[in-house]
Amino acid sequence: MSDITLNVELGARSYPIYIGPGLLHRKELFVRHVGGRQVMVVTNETVAPLYLQTLGDALADSEMHVTVLPDGEQYKNLATLETIFDRLLAVPCDRQTTVLALGGGVVGDIAGFAAACYQRGVPYIQVPTTLLAQVDSSVGGKTAVNHPRGKNMIGAFHQPNAVIADTDTLSTLPDRELRAGIAEIIKYGLIRDREFFGWLEQHVARLLEREPQALTYAIDRSCAAKAGVVAADEREQGERALLNLGHTFGHAIESTVGYGQWLHGEAVAAGMVMAAYLSRLLGDLSDTDFSRIRNLVDQARLPLAPPPHITRADLLEHMRTDKKVAAGRVRLVLLKTLGRAYLNDSYPQNALDDTLRYFKVS
Amino acid sequence: MSDITLNVELGARSYPIYIGPGLLHRKELFVRHVGGRQVMVVTNETVAPLYLQTLGDALADSEMHVTVLPDGEQYKNLATLETIFDRLLAVPCDRQTTVLALGGGVVGDIAGFAAACYQRGVPYIQVPTTLLAQVDSSVGGKTAVNHPRGKNMIGAFHQPNAVIADTDTLSTLPDRELRAGIAEIIKYGLIRDREFFGWLEQHVARLLEREPQALTYAIDRSCAAKAGVVAADEREQGERALLNLGHTFGHAIESTVGYGQWLHGEAVAAGMVMAAYLSRLLGDLSDTDFSRIRNLVDQARLPLAPPPHITRADLLEHMRTDKKVAAGRVRLVLLKTLGRAYLNDSYPQNALDDTLRYFKVS
Repeated sequence: MSDITLNVELGARSYPIYIGPGLLHRKELFVRHVGGRQVMVVTNETVAPLYLQTLGDALADSEMHVTVLPDGEQYKNLATLETIFDRLLAVPCDRQTTVLALGGGVVGDIAGFAAACYQRGVPYIQVPTTLLAQVDSSVGGKTAVNHPRGKNMIGAFHQPNAVIADTDTLSTLPDRELRAGIAEIIKYGLIRDREFFGWLEQHVARLLEREPQALTYAIDRSCAAKAGVVAADEREQGERALLNLGHTFGHAIESTVGYGQWLHGEAVAAGMVMAAYLSRLLGDLSDTDFSRIRNLVDQARLPLAPPPHITRADLLEHMRTDKKVAAGRVRLVLLKTLGRAYLNDSYPQNALDDTLRYFKVS
Repeated sequence: MSDITLNVELGARSYPIYIGPGLLHRKELFVRHVGGRQVMVVTNETVAPLYLQTLGDALADSEMHVTVLPDGEQYKNLATLETIFDRLLAVPCDRQTTVLALGGGVVGDIAGFAAACYQRGVPYIQVPTTLLAQVDSSVGGKTAVNHPRGKNMIGAFHQPNAVIADTDTLSTLPDRELRAGIAEIIKYGLIRDREFFGWLEQHVARLLEREPQALTYAIDRSCAAKAGVVAADEREQGERALLNLGHTFGHAIESTVGYGQWLHGEAVAAGMVMAAYLSRLLGDLSDTDFSRIRNLVDQARLPLAPPPHITRADLLEHMRTDKKVAAGRVRLVLLKTLGRAYLNDSYPQNALDDTLRYFKVS
């Protein structure tokens, strides 16, 4: 199977996304996108033993340095960010240094944010090794760390020079993380691509079995959707906010249960089902389409509801701290129909209450 | 005396600089530039008792919150930045919040960086209360904190919505800080305005005596120079680097003696004399012009050389960590003539050695 190249069209900040097997061995891709003489690879203790050696060969022409982070969303914070700065300055790395993120969404978000801030901005390259990162977090230039009071509260928009998604790296991904990635893939179908949603209903089992052709197709279609949205609205003034379907509920679930307990994609899956239910209550989504959504999430073996111990007070408090608050009101991404999302900040409070009750949050 | 409005021309990110007496009482200026319903004022323990009450009246239409930082360059670090994030999230402040920096360069740099990162960027307003901040750091969108290994190593380019420079606030400024501000004013004459340099030779005593008309003239002329440079080169790809005259030596002096021992402007003053000496050694600057520069810095009662205990090894090491390093070589801003600066990364090493020897750094 050959690889695919997509482009994120952002004028002077445009960049390619390479998708396919064996890309970590394609030295010329790395040489093409590394700027200065120094590269700081940021990775974690799980990924480093698997792929750092291969990456080192591809970067043989550069002065390569490495920062290995602990693995887990609970380390996506300012303290970990500071360890990257310490390392960059201990070398010392100059302002032409390229930061290279090798890992999943956490590594990509924190390394990208370090690149955004180091000497007021140095280039970076995303090498995502999880399905979630390949279809979502590595594309679009959103970088951030979490704060104890909210997810992704501190960050920057900083576009990478390139995204290099080697699908072979998915072979080492735990099943649970694979499913979390499928949650974000389902999201693209829900918000703007009813046909792709239909494809997923037919082929989700092939994704769960990691069939390479099915994975490459789904990653390509997801990245193309995201690249289109980001090109139209880089800094989330409008359409880009639709990518947050399921995320307001999802972030609140993650914050409440504690980062690292639920995977991001798992929380988003439950959040999408909740948003779909609320959309049905408002009379927009049909009963049939709600069932199709719930069924596909279930087929992907993802959560259909928040965990039982979560309380209404916790959830609402965390929703209020989420970034999607305008003038004190929590704005939600909801569905007009299956395949068309929109922003709603004027839903009736009792529709939200009924939704929480349906999902046994009290 | 009436006030002056300048514009920094940056397309969609253009903004006004207001300069003049009594501006803190001009409520309409603040109302015009505050975006959302919430304002987070960031100030320090020295400035708060002097001007916070007046500012509070001007912001009476907003939900105002305050973060008071300790006073001093030694607190311009990631730990202090984190206290601002903690405060923003404790309120909680939403993503339309305006951050307002009330204070000198340290407050402006750190508050601006907090605004750049909070929820990936919220608006901010600069209300500089020191001469240095009014003529330099509040204009141009450079924000940052220091790292133990180097000054301003972690930061962002983030333009303010407005700069409101009330010249009345200079009445409470300690003499030493007034002189530090004059150092940056002299810099504008050196790098691009020989005529203004001549004016300063005639009128520096009036600045030291805080004569309002002389101060307003010098602030206006300095801000106009800076606004012109920033409009031409927002992200320091070229011309903007000339604003760093004296800063590579200056930052190395500050880092070596420890932040907070020498004021930034004092270190820059010594650094400018060093850069002028090196320019003379290269055969560019005349003996007469070098003497004029040295004399003006002396008239402003600013340091003419680094402190006696500083060593060559310390200075060179800190110069190498400075951001002005390209491909391992320290790039310096030097003078072709008085009034024309340029970038040089190919000066002979022995010219730098002779310069350090002349200033008794060994």
